Amino acid sequence: MNTRMDAPEPKADKAGVRRHNLSLVLRTVHEAGETTRAAVAARVGLTRAAVSSLVEELLERGLLVESGKTFSGSAGRPGTVLKPATTGPAGLGVELNVDYVSVCVADLTGADRVRRTVPVENRALAPVEVLRRAAGIAAEVLAEAADQDLRPTGVRLALPGLVAGGTVQQAPNLGWNRVDADALFARALHAARPSGATALPVASDNEANVAALAELWFGDLGGVRSFVHVTGEIGVGGAIVLDGELLRGAHGFAGEIGHLTVTPDGPRCRCGSNGCLERYAGQSALLRAAGVRDVDTLERRAQDGEPRALAALDEAGRMLGVAVSGAVNLLDPQAVVLGGIYPRLTRWLAPAAEAELGRRVVSGLWTPARGRLRAASSTADAARGAAALVLRDVLADPQAYGG
Amino acid sequence: MNTRMDAPEPKADKAGVRRHNLSLVLRTVHEAGETTRAAVAARVGLTRAAVSSLVEELLERGLLVESGKTFSGSAGRPGTVLKPATTGPAGLGVELNVDYVSVCVADLTGADRVRRTVPVENRALAPVEVLRRAAGIAAEVLAEAADQDLRPTGVRLALPGLVAGGTVQQAPNLGWNRVDADALFARALHAARPSGATALPVASDNEANVAALAELWFGDLGGVRSFVHVTGEIGVGGAIVLDGELLRGAHGFAGEIGHLTVTPDGPRCRCGSNGCLERYAGQSALLRAAGVRDVDTLERRAQDGEPRALAALDEAGRMLGVAVSGAVNLLDPQAVVLGGIYPRLTRWLAPAAEAELGRRVVSGLWTPARGRLRAASSTADAARGAAALVLRDVLADPQAYGG
Repeated sequence: MNTRMDAPEPKADKAGVRRHNLSLVLRTVHEAGETTRAAVAARVGLTRAAVSSLVEELLERGLLVESGKTFSGSAGRPGTVLKPATTGPAGLGVELNVDYVSVCVADLTGADRVRRTVPVENRALAPVEVLRRAAGIAAEVLAEAADQDLRPTGVRLALPGLVAGGTVQQAPNLGWNRVDADALFARALHAARPSGATALPVASDNEANVAALAELWFGDLGGVRSFVHVTGEIGVGGAIVLDGELLRGAHGFAGEIGHLTVTPDGPRCRCGSNGCLERYAGQSALLRAAGVRDVDTLERRAQDGEPRALAALDEAGRMLGVAVSGAVNLLDPQAVVLGGIYPRLTRWLAPAAEAELGRRVVSGLWTPARGRLRAASSTADAARGAAALVLRDVLADPQAYGG
Repeated sequence: MNTRMDAPEPKADKAGVRRHNLSLVLRTVHEAGETTRAAVAARVGLTRAAVSSLVEELLERGLLVESGKTFSGSAGRPGTVLKPATTGPAGLGVELNVDYVSVCVADLTGADRVRRTVPVENRALAPVEVLRRAAGIAAEVLAEAADQDLRPTGVRLALPGLVAGGTVQQAPNLGWNRVDADALFARALHAARPSGATALPVASDNEANVAALAELWFGDLGGVRSFVHVTGEIGVGGAIVLDGELLRGAHGFAGEIGHLTVTPDGPRCRCGSNGCLERYAGQSALLRAAGVRDVDTLERRAQDGEPRALAALDEAGRMLGVAVSGAVNLLDPQAVVLGGIYPRLTRWLAPAAEAELGRRVVSGLWTPARGRLRAASSTADAARGAAALVLRDVLADPQAYGG
């Protein structure tokens, strides 16, 4: 019988209970922002004594801090306030895009504490050189973070391409094929730091994926937990979050909405297909259609009502609407979020896109009450999302960090 | 702080432990096909005594049966073989499509035990009449099932439309809008059965969704747990299964690949949009393009190499390829399964579809080793999937059934 109608869950493994509970307590404090031992015990269903012992270890490891007393809440008597530490363990996120590098250090609360964004024409450089320059910027940011007593435990790179197993399989807009980004960056970062600095583990991810996670964790989504995230950069990236989890796909490549076909016989795309959304709504295509060199100029001309700029935005919006309609018909998400260069252009892109959505999404699904294109939050970007992924590892296994 | 980076799981509720464990034991036996008390105890991590008590109740409720002794396995000593019952509690599935009704009774093992498929031109009839006729067929099938001592505990309807909360919100190919299918069918079924028959609970679902679940549970997918299922009927249905779970979406309408736009300025669709996949690859569109009246004729002409039939299949395959490429780029599934009328036509549809997939799916994703269009299994259809959904409810809460 090959039915698997409802396979029972496997027997729970009792090993690593304390390790698991340390994580549970740390995540509970993280989630609450500030709380007490008694409230944590009530929340997670452990005894007060067990929680106190776990909290002690987390304090020693520098992952939690105590601050003052609270007299509020349901715990009945005052307790010492617990918070996640805002010094010590931190995450380093590096967004390496086509025309800029952005580096962020986030503390354990997720706050963006050190930031450096540098325009770089990465297309003109060899991958090893791109990664070397990015590592140089990251080394400076690490030094600045050290001055604030922030010690990143790892690095997450966010790259505009298909990333699997530490290798950028393909990043058409960077012109990269099979680049061992993790290893090259780790080596370059180590070389750029003072001798004696501990080597940091490096892992890569798709830029659109981490931008979507940043929106989930730091954005202004209200109760939305399932959404499609479309990022306008030189190309168009995409990511899918379902019930608070990133959909990675069978090979780690899910979310490539930029290569959804919007016109089967349309212009050739760098990916090898033609008529991809990216060829209409990517930054390069949009600027070319508008006859301008940069997004600032495009925005200014649109504000001035310049017809060619408005027509380019309208056409990009229309094609965005066609592709997003497809994603909505397939996924029935709670929302669609536009990130990257799109938030500042949404007022011109949205009308045409909304018209397509209203027409193409199966009836009842896209209504003003249910769906609206929304601009990504300005505080949620790929570099911060990448830094937060490092922090998530700390939250998941506090014993591996701190102390 | 509005971060929800890793919210801790809620405290486990201790109520209903026996109820939960009954389900766990029943599902374990179901999954295994046949097993022993000792093997169940080892698998689920309960004591042998606890398992024996639970098995006793499941035997009394007629959900399990004992048969002979086994001397094999790792349990060390012979035990009585336990199996799911093949009489008693069963599921009734009713697929109500545009031009036929198919009714299936499946026993607790998922086996298709009674089947009746009747061609009906449902488009020509009012919804209440369609449901009345389907209920009449279902009543006959129930009588036949009773002769085999099979007693369905509920009915699942599978309908080609958007279904939410018991109401068919929209089924363009049936011409239905806001039809309370559950209530109408339940009333008609009760009227068609002998007086004194217990009223059966009725629930509706989207036909493509249950067809996909049937493929997952009864098909020949090997290790595939994430796939896109495309069903060719009068329209084109679709469903998405991710890691063994149906993606339902925020409003229950996910999977509508039939209304993915393949040509933005293409012909008008019944859904209100235009250029939908369905307008090229749905049964109606395909037969019209081929100049034939039914799928048998289309298949025969294709076998004979008739140019118009081949051209129609090639074009439908091309458009299927465009739409499926979009779904693959978004979801990165392990496989794409073609169901409904497509399996018998796959040899003519696949070449053009594969060519589009090879060209349009972002590189590395669709290769002969990774992706292939595959025809749905002939033993997995929507009616059986619907019946199995009823059984899943029994497996999830055995105390509510049997006995």
